[in-house]
Amino acid sequence: MRIAILGYGNLGRGVELAIKQNADTELVAVFTRRDPSKVKIQTPNIPIVNVAEIVEWKDKIDVLILCGGSATDLPHQTPKFAKLFNVVDSFDTHAKIPNHFANVDTAAKAGGHIAIISVGWDPGLFSLARVYSNAVLPNGKDYTFWGKGVSQGHSDAIRRIKGVKNAKQYTIPIDSALEAVRSGKNPDLTTRQKHLRECFVVLDEGADAKEVERQIKTMPNYFDEYNTTVNFITEEELQRDHSGLAHGGFVIRSGKTGQDDQHNHIVEFNLKLDSNPEFTSNVLVAYARAAYRLNKEGQSGCKTVLDIAPSYLSVKSNEELRAHYL
Amino acid sequence: MRIAILGYGNLGRGVELAIKQNADTELVAVFTRRDPSKVKIQTPNIPIVNVAEIVEWKDKIDVLILCGGSATDLPHQTPKFAKLFNVVDSFDTHAKIPNHFANVDTAAKAGGHIAIISVGWDPGLFSLARVYSNAVLPNGKDYTFWGKGVSQGHSDAIRRIKGVKNAKQYTIPIDSALEAVRSGKNPDLTTRQKHLRECFVVLDEGADAKEVERQIKTMPNYFDEYNTTVNFITEEELQRDHSGLAHGGFVIRSGKTGQDDQHNHIVEFNLKLDSNPEFTSNVLVAYARAAYRLNKEGQSGCKTVLDIAPSYLSVKSNEELRAHYL
Repeated sequence: MRIAILGYGNLGRGVELAIKQNADTELVAVFTRRDPSKVKIQTPNIPIVNVAEIVEWKDKIDVLILCGGSATDLPHQTPKFAKLFNVVDSFDTHAKIPNHFANVDTAAKAGGHIAIISVGWDPGLFSLARVYSNAVLPNGKDYTFWGKGVSQGHSDAIRRIKGVKNAKQYTIPIDSALEAVRSGKNPDLTTRQKHLRECFVVLDEGADAKEVERQIKTMPNYFDEYNTTVNFITEEELQRDHSGLAHGGFVIRSGKTGQDDQHNHIVEFNLKLDSNPEFTSNVLVAYARAAYRLNKEGQSGCKTVLDIAPSYLSVKSNEELRAHYL
Repeated sequence: MRIAILGYGNLGRGVELAIKQNADTELVAVFTRRDPSKVKIQTPNIPIVNVAEIVEWKDKIDVLILCGGSATDLPHQTPKFAKLFNVVDSFDTHAKIPNHFANVDTAAKAGGHIAIISVGWDPGLFSLARVYSNAVLPNGKDYTFWGKGVSQGHSDAIRRIKGVKNAKQYTIPIDSALEAVRSGKNPDLTTRQKHLRECFVVLDEGADAKEVERQIKTMPNYFDEYNTTVNFITEEELQRDHSGLAHGGFVIRSGKTGQDDQHNHIVEFNLKLDSNPEFTSNVLVAYARAAYRLNKEGQSGCKTVLDIAPSYLSVKSNEELRAHYL
């Protein structure tokens, strides 16, 4: 399977590594909006090409993995390139998925290609956990916890405060809430009871720490409904101790069966990831395999992880899966 | 969706309850090998019919859920009835799945029906967890833990010992092994390090407790490779304290990414079930929905959970799933 990458940031680098872990995938090109001579990748002898020339690669690529951002890149890129290639993206703005799906579906059908959107872990593997667990436990309650991991949106919000030079914000699930859910008590949990927010902040010289802390803790939507801790550190400490990209989370459904709903069942899926972008990249490559296979079967249009049978993701044959994994 | 049940034991009763939890499913008949007048079910006004008459129901049933056992019932029943109906079974003899699949596939294709085999949680949801996690973490290691729950096979083995009147055996995962796996250490675990076996035994009058305990603990394959505890109790205590059908388990994949494999990732799926048969029944009904839909699309043949896209299991529309579950 000949795979190309569009966009060489953390995700693109992760896809490059993921391709090496799979015997049936090969990296054939990296496309960039930058000057290709300024982009250095890890694998030798792979063409680095300006995206303006991508159309010349039409018959040389089986799947194009789009590694741009959900805010401004993917809403345009995915429909545009689904006309030319089978594509996979990690579009993660949950509220805008239906609209993105519609745009991409039209383009992919016009081009006769498969596009798989919103691939990763949330949306992605967490979505699978929600749909499977709801299907098998119709009478129940869903819980999702995120973390421990850095929230980019919350870190950005802190950086916009006057007097803040740099910041990282960790979302941390609260153990007692997790345990209450796992016990089958089906608790009603407030926002404050589910997650803590822990902030590491570097101040501009002469900034008022007390005032910055007050502004963080009272910020509507982002922090006011949470218990938040604020730690002031140096830029060196931030770079040294808080540059990691770890993340994870928990999807739990607690449901009842029995004549009198007397039996409780807990279905839990959880992830503990040292590198959020590298793991997401691995999921993208597995779904690239599915896109390629579905298109070879003659299918086209937009799909999500919910539309794709698990066997399409595996390098192993159906016979092998039935014999050893079922 | 008109569903019928064949076989009214714990699983059949569970399916009857599960059908009530789903707005789009309706129980239309229960088939039995027993005298129908001797079978009492929970729902009023449902025909209870001898299985000899099942062919008359050919056009009155959308999916037949087979609730027999894997040892002697399903190897014959599933191919036989896949000729007449869409069927779902919970065939769980892992080593014999390829052969069962081949037999059922031929029959289902001849009849123009869909048959979904090996539905439940292991095989079933655990198989899904294994295939998804292997696809997204090609460089890693799989771990499965079962329990805490009663193992029927091990309980039966104890009952065959001379001097034993009755027995229940619990398989219990060892917490320290689970924690070692979750820590990302990728330990090599022996059989003894993964599970404990706890036995509750009722002796015949005058039986030699010491000798029974020795025979249990040294029994090849079943107990000799485990740390086993044996508790002698009365029949009343066994009935009172050990009649539950709770079970569960953990599927964990621990895998590496990164230029130097420096990043570890843990993907975990776990179940904690108060009633093993009722939960399994709920999974059967979700896959009955898939069987019905696939057949309506014109498909036929044998499928497993690995061949079926998650959206087929949900009562919700694809639009609704994308908007609220993705």
